[in-house]
Amino acid sequence: MSTTAESFLVGLVGSGITASLTPPMHEEEAARLGLRYLYRPVDLDVIGRPGTAVGELLRAGRDLGFNAFNITHPCKQLVIDHLDELVPQAAALQAVNTVLVVDGRLVGYNTDRTGFATGLAAELPDVPRSTVLQIGTGGAGAAVAAALVDTGVQRLVLTDADPARARARAAVLQEQHADREFVVVGTDRIGEVMETADGVVNATPIGMHHHPGTPLPADRLRPDQWVADVVYLPIDTPLVQAARARGCRVLDGGHMAVGQAADAFALITGITPDRTRMRDHFLRLVGGGPD
Amino acid sequence: MSTTAESFLVGLVGSGITASLTPPMHEEEAARLGLRYLYRPVDLDVIGRPGTAVGELLRAGRDLGFNAFNITHPCKQLVIDHLDELVPQAAALQAVNTVLVVDGRLVGYNTDRTGFATGLAAELPDVPRSTVLQIGTGGAGAAVAAALVDTGVQRLVLTDADPARARARAAVLQEQHADREFVVVGTDRIGEVMETADGVVNATPIGMHHHPGTPLPADRLRPDQWVADVVYLPIDTPLVQAARARGCRVLDGGHMAVGQAADAFALITGITPDRTRMRDHFLRLVGGGPD
Repeated sequence: MSTTAESFLVGLVGSGITASLTPPMHEEEAARLGLRYLYRPVDLDVIGRPGTAVGELLRAGRDLGFNAFNITHPCKQLVIDHLDELVPQAAALQAVNTVLVVDGRLVGYNTDRTGFATGLAAELPDVPRSTVLQIGTGGAGAAVAAALVDTGVQRLVLTDADPARARARAAVLQEQHADREFVVVGTDRIGEVMETADGVVNATPIGMHHHPGTPLPADRLRPDQWVADVVYLPIDTPLVQAARARGCRVLDGGHMAVGQAADAFALITGITPDRTRMRDHFLRLVGGGPD
Repeated sequence: MSTTAESFLVGLVGSGITASLTPPMHEEEAARLGLRYLYRPVDLDVIGRPGTAVGELLRAGRDLGFNAFNITHPCKQLVIDHLDELVPQAAALQAVNTVLVVDGRLVGYNTDRTGFATGLAAELPDVPRSTVLQIGTGGAGAAVAAALVDTGVQRLVLTDADPARARARAAVLQEQHADREFVVVGTDRIGEVMETADGVVNATPIGMHHHPGTPLPADRLRPDQWVADVVYLPIDTPLVQAARARGCRVLDGGHMAVGQAADAFALITGITPDRTRMRDHFLRLVGGGPD
């Protein structure tokens, strides 16, 4: 009897996410597509709940009519125990950033992984991928490493200020991808590895407004190398600026931020969003213009 | 940094409310006003929760970004213990059908009461109100009785198949309104009381599709009497039809249904909705055309 059009209710659960750009990205694209779509930030700091409350929040959200959630720090691992199903690309990472409510069941996905892979494949489709150096193997780094494998990287050199974390990540990847090579080096060897790398990827917070600097000796980049960053505030990190100045092909951090949002949007709505329009909007949000 | 426009997220908590007309009423009016507004039915039967879960659901909804809730059977009383504040018109009834989230606090209102009063005042502004007979003193009946007092009824005669319920309601009303008169009679005296009543109000389910019949001897209605019904499925109950046929002025049940929704909408948004447009939409939903 209801004439109510289909609509989408989505939440983002995490700490310190009140200013996240993901809610406006989703809502703007939905508005452009004429969809009825609300995306609510659920900031654990604001509501005074711990990360371990994520399961309870998701179950309540399911009961209250939410269609989906994005999940971020510190809940990407914590959420797994509360899901009814985990798709393989998320299970392999043991990290979830998107949960769909499907017939009352909570199903976990990881669009950080697919979003980075999509951005890399779209923006730098033809770059060499024999050897790639990745700096940082934390939450974002795990998704990035899997995405690098997904997009054809043969030999991935991992380094991290926490060497044990890099070794653990390499071991997981090696077990899952016997046909690829995973190497761990100390951060003191970054300059040396750069000499033989086709591309370098920053998956650390270095370059953010309050983490200035570059994660590598930028003056040693060569024009034939490609550089990717996951940092997007600012969008033109010192690494991105230096790489462009030296003639490298560059994937800035906005591509992962937009990619994870676009892929989540597609999962939630079943509608393919306009990624270029989403990126233009994202660039306006972070204070630059469309490129 | 967000460019997200203001938006409203509202839920309806109750049993068997999946087909309720209140969600589409809110959403249609919001769409006409250009508001971003989602209204989610939260049917306790569907999610398998008891009425006592209403407090937990409201607290979770608050944390998940809901702006407001409507509350219906069986939660209108149960919800009270979970509120941070109760406005006087709801406290007097000890029944809440609307909860606003105001700076994280849950504040209870009753727009069944205001909705019926507004409908009566708008549609039958000049009818006599010296003596009114009200049949039925349950949940809807309590709100109707208070609304009748609010709109100037001097002497209210209450009757109910459960005489104790009518007596209890009369006692509460008498304590709150020493300047009015409240009388309880048995249902066997309905015909007798009709002889001296200016208006009669049905607040029982009699007249609903699966409760056919009239709650009173309709052949004893006089053209100078007014008749109000709270039943709206069908909108032209046997009582409404008989009253119109006998020349009575009539307030059909749609006015209370629309009134409670319109008043809740105004509380939630701060924007006065177009009640005529909401009623026209409501009449289309129940299968009649605008009158």
